Amino acid sequence: MKKIILDPAQSTRLINHGPVVLVTSGIERPNIFSAAWNMPVAREGDSALVALAINPDHYSYSLIKEYGQFAFNVPGKELLPAVIICGSTSGRKVDKFEKTGLTHVKAHKIDVPLIDECLGHLECTLEHEVRLGDHVLLIGRVVAASVNEEIFDGCWIFEKIENRTIHHLGAEYFCYPEKRITAG
Amino acid sequence: MKKIILDPAQSTRLINHGPVVLVTSGIERPNIFSAAWNMPVAREGDSALVALAINPDHYSYSLIKEYGQFAFNVPGKELLPAVIICGSTSGRKVDKFEKTGLTHVKAHKIDVPLIDECLGHLECTLEHEVRLGDHVLLIGRVVAASVNEEIFDGCWIFEKIENRTIHHLGAEYFCYPEKRITAG
Repeated sequence: MKKIILDPAQSTRLINHGPVVLVTSGIERPNIFSAAWNMPVAREGDSALVALAINPDHYSYSLIKEYGQFAFNVPGKELLPAVIICGSTSGRKVDKFEKTGLTHVKAHKIDVPLIDECLGHLECTLEHEVRLGDHVLLIGRVVAASVNEEIFDGCWIFEKIENRTIHHLGAEYFCYPEKRITAG
Repeated sequence: MKKIILDPAQSTRLINHGPVVLVTSGIERPNIFSAAWNMPVAREGDSALVALAINPDHYSYSLIKEYGQFAFNVPGKELLPAVIICGSTSGRKVDKFEKTGLTHVKAHKIDVPLIDECLGHLECTLEHEVRLGDHVLLIGRVVAASVNEEIFDGCWIFEKIENRTIHHLGAEYFCYPEKRITAG
């Protein structure tokens, strides 16, 4: 069961440790792409801002620009095959929900769907865009956040789950986190 | 022994999976701060660009602005105590090299020092600055990169080392990666 995260400082902890996210965009025919280059960037008023670096040639970039919305969906290791597919095919040619078998579900505050099988979600509206070299940095405002209630107590409770987040080392290499530890 | 990474696509793999970095800045009296909000963002010509979100009230921000340079130093788990110190004290009051016992060494292309005990390093010049909410996003150009030669073959070889990178889950919670896996 997913619970809503109300505290913006907690919502960005879904991605604070650097996991790959599956970014959903588009509405009538939604698309998915895998992104390692994502992070929290700021607080502004009652909301959090997050950043996503994307190649502007990608189909997802045109969808995010068209609708002004996107979502970060945080996959667990069981979804590594889907992460590979969504990172190596184009939504211009392939319906990635169909190809991966992932389930789209209605989001709380945006019209772009979420991926039901993911552990947590950040729903974002597009706020800014910064062109940098061969990529564009998209800045999103988190307008809703949700997470599997059994595995998050304000931070990920990795000691309670085996299906932990996916981290991309580069090329064909990935790693998963060990249990969480308490510092100090 | 550290080796130089010449390929810009490989240099950003030091931080592709979301580790905490120790950011060095300043020259005469260098400072260190711990940053989870860092990532690669783009390629531009022969170099890579990286992003760092920083609170502009922080002492390191004024040092980075003053000298136009900074370095990402990637700590292994043995340096978690130093990460905690550098994330919870201000360089305005404390000499963090002295406080942590870390060793500063000369960088290859910038005047800001590196931290010898870290696993790898990205030396950066400040290229852009974007104000976002309560943070500033600093964009750096990677002008040199180096890494412990035994633990990097174009990506981190986590199967060969126990002293792996540190990832911040939020608050007092951290995690380390398991061994690397090959997808597909």
